[in-house]
Amino acid sequence: MFLGRVPGEDGLPRIVATNDPQAGWRDVRELHRRDLQSQGATAEAADELSRLVVAGNLTAALGSGDLFLDLAARCAADATGEAQTFQPATFLCPVDPPLYRDFMVFEDHFSFGYRWRGLETPGVLYEMPVSYLGNPASFMGTGAEVPWPHYAEEMDYELELGIVLGRRAADLTPETARSAILGVTILNDFSARDIQRREMAAGLGPSKGKHFASSAGPWIATLDELGPDPDLAMRAEVNGEIRCEARSAEMIWSIEEIVSWASAAEVIPAGSLLGTGTANGGSGVEFGQFLAQGDTVSLTVDKLGTLTNTLSVRGSGWSPSPRTPSHA
Amino acid sequence: MFLGRVPGEDGLPRIVATNDPQAGWRDVRELHRRDLQSQGATAEAADELSRLVVAGNLTAALGSGDLFLDLAARCAADATGEAQTFQPATFLCPVDPPLYRDFMVFEDHFSFGYRWRGLETPGVLYEMPVSYLGNPASFMGTGAEVPWPHYAEEMDYELELGIVLGRRAADLTPETARSAILGVTILNDFSARDIQRREMAAGLGPSKGKHFASSAGPWIATLDELGPDPDLAMRAEVNGEIRCEARSAEMIWSIEEIVSWASAAEVIPAGSLLGTGTANGGSGVEFGQFLAQGDTVSLTVDKLGTLTNTLSVRGSGWSPSPRTPSHA
Repeated sequence: MFLGRVPGEDGLPRIVATNDPQAGWRDVRELHRRDLQSQGATAEAADELSRLVVAGNLTAALGSGDLFLDLAARCAADATGEAQTFQPATFLCPVDPPLYRDFMVFEDHFSFGYRWRGLETPGVLYEMPVSYLGNPASFMGTGAEVPWPHYAEEMDYELELGIVLGRRAADLTPETARSAILGVTILNDFSARDIQRREMAAGLGPSKGKHFASSAGPWIATLDELGPDPDLAMRAEVNGEIRCEARSAEMIWSIEEIVSWASAAEVIPAGSLLGTGTANGGSGVEFGQFLAQGDTVSLTVDKLGTLTNTLSVRGSGWSPSPRTPSHA
Repeated sequence: MFLGRVPGEDGLPRIVATNDPQAGWRDVRELHRRDLQSQGATAEAADELSRLVVAGNLTAALGSGDLFLDLAARCAADATGEAQTFQPATFLCPVDPPLYRDFMVFEDHFSFGYRWRGLETPGVLYEMPVSYLGNPASFMGTGAEVPWPHYAEEMDYELELGIVLGRRAADLTPETARSAILGVTILNDFSARDIQRREMAAGLGPSKGKHFASSAGPWIATLDELGPDPDLAMRAEVNGEIRCEARSAEMIWSIEEIVSWASAAEVIPAGSLLGTGTANGGSGVEFGQFLAQGDTVSLTVDKLGTLTNTLSVRGSGWSPSPRTPSHA
């Protein structure tokens, strides 16, 4: 099954589903509304109930649990053959994650990252999937313009997979993790390399170098669409020129291991997004190339479509004034 | 004004306010319910409306904006003299942050932290307030038992101030930041030092070493309760023995600077919590002392009360198996 979000006729978002993105998509709420009416509900009640069960945002819809997931699967399969099938003019960001966490599981990328900073690759990267928490509030979809923060010069993209949780996850194991995973989408973890390099010297990880924007989409594919050992071709283009061709099988930790470790001794809410980290060669800094105003970045992954964003003009704003250390 | 959360008679949380924690607290929703009834609302409508305007969770209540904040201020002042004043038997965690971000602004603490890992203090700590995003979903209040994750041995506490945002913050400056700040509370950023040290070698900051638990409370004091240049005495005790006495004026960045930089080129939702990082001497690792099962940690700050938690038994769970590097 594939799940997306599109603007409805009233301008509010709708969740759509299909088993074949090329053949067209169907509105999950609309299926539920028709179901309810065919079971004797009044038009008003069917409208109100279907809006509650199939919210316009993924995290809220996942709050309905199997009720929503079963409806989405039926809608994707078009079991009744009655639902209207259409090709959306645009997709909204498919996720509104309560939590966003980014890992680093592509070995060529992360070993580059340390060389870039004059360091050896730390052994811990091979001991556990290592991650940091990112800003869940700055996600945008395909077609959206990416803001350029005032405090940064070296703007970059990152080609990643995003793992979307379909259920609340806590203390999972690789054997139990699959049932908590809704699917995967394309993730662009936009980065401002100069501020990122400065702040990472403090050892607390990236922060202002990442928080200004991330993008995801255009849609989510459930794991069963990807086969048992998924090896997806991943490609990054800037202004139409291919910059990276990588494979998802190059991950050194599996999707199930990533989710299990994320959920060890903590709760990950349904709708959360876990990034794999950048694919090998999947960022400009690896080639000394940064983005310029107006540049268009397109990330394409097998079965997941193409996620396209354009870099906006640089903003303006406050920055702190330095302090004098009292300890030399 | 002081704001807290307590269990209501129906077991569901209530927000309470006062201008004097020792003299007693009043239920903000109850004030609004009486207001509405005295203005001609039916008992049913007054009950329903007051539940919507004054939710039991802080983030939802802040969604009502000035309507909630004005009610809380009137309730704290007991303007009508009619509301029931009581001393709660217990306080719940006052916050349910949509975003939790922890800074590092106490110089003696952070310079210790680098020495501890055999490093020099990075200059960036004096160039900007540096932070990482923590887990907003694992907050507990005073009296709660802190889980001990299966993957860690060296359990520790951290004595911090938590800054609570009262309004959505974006692109603030130190001059405009104050209006977005609701107040401050005590924050204990529990840490598992062995896993923290291992994962921080990767440079992405702390993650599993922090996510299992944080605590905050017992209540929030608004900034006007603290005076223009707040210098609060901060104390940590373990099993009744004083381990740290610090002052909040030792922060090298002000509350307004922390909030401004956090909001630069990003949006911080109302109800979010920004930690100051550990007060000087405010953690056990600074003295080579870790917590044992059953240990009780009490953090006391002027005007903010005492936040007490006890360390639980160590849990069990899955941990990843190491990988072999393909790049030596």
